[in-house]
Amino acid sequence: MTEPRQRGRSCPCPGVRTWVPILRWLPRYSLAWLQLDVVAGLTVGLTVVPQALAYAEVAGLPVQYGLYSSFMGCFVYCFLGTAKDVTLGPTAIMSLLVSSYAFHEPVYAVLLAFLSGCIQLAMGLLHLGFLLDFISSPVIKGFTSAASITISFNQVKNILGLQGIPRQFFLQVYETLRRIGETSALTQLLVLSFFHLSWKLEGRNALVVLFAGLVAYSFQVMGSQPLTLTGSIPQGLPAFQLPRFSMDAPNGTVPFRSMVEDMGVGLAVVPLMGLLETIAIAKAFASRNDYRIDPNQELLAMGFANILGSFVSSYPITGSFGRTAVNAQSGVCTPAGGLVTGALVLLSLAYLTSLFYYIPKAALAAVIISAVVPMFDAGIFRTLWRVKRLDLVPLCVTFLLCFWEVQYGIVAGVLVSGILLFYSIARPPIKVSEGDVLLVQPGSSLHFPAIEWLRDTVCSHALAAASPPRSIILDCRHISSIDYTVVLGLAELLQELRKHGLSLTFCCLQDPVLKVLLSADLEGFQHFPSWEETERCGGAEPRGCGADPFASTSESSLLPTRLIQ
Amino acid sequence: MTEPRQRGRSCPCPGVRTWVPILRWLPRYSLAWLQLDVVAGLTVGLTVVPQALAYAEVAGLPVQYGLYSSFMGCFVYCFLGTAKDVTLGPTAIMSLLVSSYAFHEPVYAVLLAFLSGCIQLAMGLLHLGFLLDFISSPVIKGFTSAASITISFNQVKNILGLQGIPRQFFLQVYETLRRIGETSALTQLLVLSFFHLSWKLEGRNALVVLFAGLVAYSFQVMGSQPLTLTGSIPQGLPAFQLPRFSMDAPNGTVPFRSMVEDMGVGLAVVPLMGLLETIAIAKAFASRNDYRIDPNQELLAMGFANILGSFVSSYPITGSFGRTAVNAQSGVCTPAGGLVTGALVLLSLAYLTSLFYYIPKAALAAVIISAVVPMFDAGIFRTLWRVKRLDLVPLCVTFLLCFWEVQYGIVAGVLVSGILLFYSIARPPIKVSEGDVLLVQPGSSLHFPAIEWLRDTVCSHALAAASPPRSIILDCRHISSIDYTVVLGLAELLQELRKHGLSLTFCCLQDPVLKVLLSADLEGFQHFPSWEETERCGGAEPRGCGADPFASTSESSLLPTRLIQ
Repeated sequence: MTEPRQRGRSCPCPGVRTWVPILRWLPRYSLAWLQLDVVAGLTVGLTVVPQALAYAEVAGLPVQYGLYSSFMGCFVYCFLGTAKDVTLGPTAIMSLLVSSYAFHEPVYAVLLAFLSGCIQLAMGLLHLGFLLDFISSPVIKGFTSAASITISFNQVKNILGLQGIPRQFFLQVYETLRRIGETSALTQLLVLSFFHLSWKLEGRNALVVLFAGLVAYSFQVMGSQPLTLTGSIPQGLPAFQLPRFSMDAPNGTVPFRSMVEDMGVGLAVVPLMGLLETIAIAKAFASRNDYRIDPNQELLAMGFANILGSFVSSYPITGSFGRTAVNAQSGVCTPAGGLVTGALVLLSLAYLTSLFYYIPKAALAAVIISAVVPMFDAGIFRTLWRVKRLDLVPLCVTFLLCFWEVQYGIVAGVLVSGILLFYSIARPPIKVSEGDVLLVQPGSSLHFPAIEWLRDTVCSHALAAASPPRSIILDCRHISSIDYTVVLGLAELLQELRKHGLSLTFCCLQDPVLKVLLSADLEGFQHFPSWEETERCGGAEPRGCGADPFASTSESSLLPTRLIQ
Repeated sequence: MTEPRQRGRSCPCPGVRTWVPILRWLPRYSLAWLQLDVVAGLTVGLTVVPQALAYAEVAGLPVQYGLYSSFMGCFVYCFLGTAKDVTLGPTAIMSLLVSSYAFHEPVYAVLLAFLSGCIQLAMGLLHLGFLLDFISSPVIKGFTSAASITISFNQVKNILGLQGIPRQFFLQVYETLRRIGETSALTQLLVLSFFHLSWKLEGRNALVVLFAGLVAYSFQVMGSQPLTLTGSIPQGLPAFQLPRFSMDAPNGTVPFRSMVEDMGVGLAVVPLMGLLETIAIAKAFASRNDYRIDPNQELLAMGFANILGSFVSSYPITGSFGRTAVNAQSGVCTPAGGLVTGALVLLSLAYLTSLFYYIPKAALAAVIISAVVPMFDAGIFRTLWRVKRLDLVPLCVTFLLCFWEVQYGIVAGVLVSGILLFYSIARPPIKVSEGDVLLVQPGSSLHFPAIEWLRDTVCSHALAAASPPRSIILDCRHISSIDYTVVLGLAELLQELRKHGLSLTFCCLQDPVLKVLLSADLEGFQHFPSWEETERCGGAEPRGCGADPFASTSESSLLPTRLIQ
C-alpha cells in the first residue's frame, strides 16, 4: 500500500496536480496495484448493488435511482479524490435526508443533487470548509443515533410487508404495532431467517440477497408468494442529460423557484452533512492507513461528483462508511478501485435488473438494518453526563427533534451548540483578585462580544468596592488577538477609570496584541512585560518572577482570588 | 444629583423593587428634585415636539404619528427604567428602519412596535441580552454613518420642496440633482437661512421651528407661499386600543401572517437595534454621571414601552441620544422628568396641532439634518486602517449595503463580523516549536470548531517531519475550558500518535480543564503541572521554572519557534 500523496516526477505542472490528484499516482501505477484494485472494486461493487436498491427505498424513490446514484461518484472520485479508501455513493443517512426534502419525487432528488454539488463546489473554491467544524460531536451523535432508530423502524413495515404506513415516526410506530398481526406466520419466519443470515454474514449483503432471491423465486415457481418483492425495474442506463429545473405536476408546472423554496433548509443540510460524512470517513481511514488527505480537495471532489451525478439521475451521494471499510479491508491501493465498482453497477443496470425482480423487500430491509444499527450509540449519554453535562443539551435537542423531522433536529442542534459557543465567547472566565491592587485576568482570548462583560466586571469591582483599590492591573497573558471593538471598549474603560482617579495598567501583553494597542494610541495606555514589574512601579513589593499570579502554586493562596462565572 | 440605584428603606419587598425601579427612588423624592425634574422635562419636551414631527417624515408616516410615539415611552420609562437621564421616543435611526419595514403604512408601523416590544420583553425575561454583544462596533459605525448620509439626503427633497422623488438612495440622488433647478431662488434663500439658524442654535429646535413657522405664516397672510408647509394634522389624543392585526387594503384584507412575512427580518433588526441604542446611551450617561444601570431591566422597560406604545398608535421607539443629552444637561434627577415631557406632548396633541400647520417642512428637515450629521464618522476608516485592517471588511460591507437597503447592510455586517469571529475561533493561533521534543501551544481557549485544526497542526508537524520528534508536549496554559467535541478530538489524537509510537503529554492544565479530561478517562493520558517537569520526565534538561517557553524573554530565542497563522 503506497501513499497517493507522494508526488510523481513525470508531471511538470504542480498546479494541475493539486487539483487533479490522479496525476500524482497514475504515473507510478503498477500491475500489482491493478490486481488489488480490481479485487477491491469487485468486492465493493457486490456490496453497493444490494445497498443501492435498499437505500433508494429509504429515500422514498424507485429502486433504480439507487443504482443510478452508485457509479458516477466512483468515477469522479477516482480522478479528484485524495483518499484511496473512500467510495462515494448512496448512504443510509443521506437517503433519509433525501426522503425529507425530495418528497418521493425523483425530479426533486436529482435537482437536490445538482444544487448540493454546486454548493459543495462553491465551498471548496471559497475555502469555506472550516464551516464544517461548527457541527459539533453531540449534534452528529444525536443525529446518527436518531437516524439509526428511524431508519430501522422504517424498515419494519417492509420486513412485515405492511402497506400504507404513515411516514411520520410516531404515527409509524403506532400503526406498525397496531397492524403487526396482519402478516402470516410463514412470512414472519422467512423474514427472521433473512435477518439472522444478514447478522451472521456481517455485511456480505450480496450473499443474503442472493439467498433470499432464490427463496422468493422458489415460492414464485410453486405459485404462492408470502414475501413482498422488489418488482420490475426499468432496464438500461440512465440518460446523460441536464437535471430538470421544473416539474410537471397534475395541477400545472412547478417552477424552479418553488422547488427551491420547497427544499428550503435542505439546501444547507444536505450538502453540509454530505461533506461532513465524506471528510470524517476520509480522515478516519487516512489516519488508520497512514496517509493524509486534503479536506479542501475533498470538497471539490464531492461537488463535482454530485453535479455530474445529477446528469445521470443520481440523488445526493456522499462517502459510505461501510463500503469504505470493505474497500480498505480488500486492500485497495488507489481510488482506481472505484472504476471497477462503477463498471459493475453499470453492468447490473444494463443486464441484471430483470433478476432483481425476485429480491424480497425484507432482504433489502435486513441489509439496511444491519448497516445502521451500529450507528446507534447509547453510551454517549452516559459519557456526556460524566465528562461535560452542558453538551447533553445539544445532544438531546438533536436526538429528540430528529424523530419529529430530521432537519429540525440538525438545525436546532447546530443552533443550540452555537448559542452555547456564543455564550462562552461572550462570557469568558475572568479571574479577579481584590486587594490593594485589583488584579484582573481574562481566562481566554477577548473577542468583541466579551468586551462589555470585561468592562462591567472591572467597573463593578473597582468602583463598587468598599475600599477602592489604588490601581488596576489587567493581566493579558491569555489574550492572543483583539479586534477593534475590544480596543474601543478598552479605551472607554481607561477613560472611565481615569475619571474616578484610578489607573489601569496592562501586563503580559502578547506581541500582536501590544502592536494593535500601540497603533490605537489609547489615552493613558501603559503596559509592563510582567505582572511583578507593574506592581513594583505601582509601589508594591515584587513577588516571584514572571509567574502567573493565579497559577495553582504556593503563592496564589495568599491572594483572595475569585473566579467569575 | 443622586443615584437612583441606592435603595430606599421603606419598601419591604426587594423582588418588586428590582422589577419596578421607581420604588427605589420614589420614597426619597424631594421638592428640590421636583424643581429640577420639571425644568428638564419641559426642556426635553420642547425638543421632542419638533423632532417628533420631523422623524415621522423620515419614517414615511403622517406627522401626528411622531407625536403619538413620543409620550408613552416617557411614562413607562419613569416606572421601569434604571437610568435617570434616558428618554425614550422616536429617533432618526429607528425612523429610518421603520420606513424600510412599515411601507409607509401606520398599521404596519404600530404592529411592528407591538411585536418588537414582545420580542424585547421576551429577551429580557430569558436574559438574552448578551446577544446584543454580537453586534460589533464596525457594524454600528458603518450603519450610523450610512444612515446619517441617507437621512440627510432624504431631507434635501423636503428642503427644496421637490415632489415625487423615489425612495431608493441612488435613484434619489440622481433625481434630486436633476431637478434641483425647479425650486425658486426665494425658497432656496429661506431654506438656507433656516439651516443656518438651526446650525447656530445647536439643537434648540423649538426656536428654529417657531421662527420658521412665523416666517411661513407671514407669507401665508401676504397671500404667496414659497415654502412647503406641514399642513393640517388631526387634532386630539390617539385612542387607547389594541394594535390591529390585519390591514384593509384595496384588494382585500392583508392577514396577520402576511404582514409578519412582509416585515420579515425587520422583526429581528428593529428590536435589536432599539435595545442596542437604548443600552448604549444608558451606559454612556451612567458612566458620565456616575451611576450604574441594569441592562436586563432596560430590556424589560423597552419591551413594555413599545407594547404599551403600540396601544396608542406609536411606532417603534428607543433611547434618543440627543434628547438624553439635553435631559442630563438640564440637571434631571430622576426618570420623573419624563412625566413632564410626556404631558407636554399630550398637551401639544390636544391643543397645538392647528398651529403646526404653518411649520415649513424645510425647518423640520433642518432639525433632522442637524441631529444626524454628527453621526457620520469619517475618521473610523482611517482608525481601522491603522489599528485593525480586518475590521474594515464588516465596516465597508455594512456602510455600502446600507445605501442599497438598511436591513441588508446590518444583516450582512453582522454576518461578516460573525464569520470573522467564527474563523478566529475555528483557527486560533497555535505556536509550535520543533526540535527533539515537539512543543505545541494553542494561543487561546479551544472551542469545538478548533479541535480539527489543532489535530491537523499536531499531526502535520509530528508525522510529516523529516526527523520525527521523540515526544509531543501540548501546553494548555491558555485553555480555560473545553467541551466534549474537543475531548473526543484529543482522544483520537492520542490514539493516532500512539499508533505511530509517539507520546503526547499535556502540561500547564488549568483546573477545570484537568477535571474534564480526567473524567473522560482518556487512554494514555498523562499530564504535568509545568512544562519543565514534562521535559525532565521525558529526559531533557530543565529550563527555567514555570515560565512560558514562548514568552518573549531571553530563553525563547533558543527555540526555533513558528507561529501558525
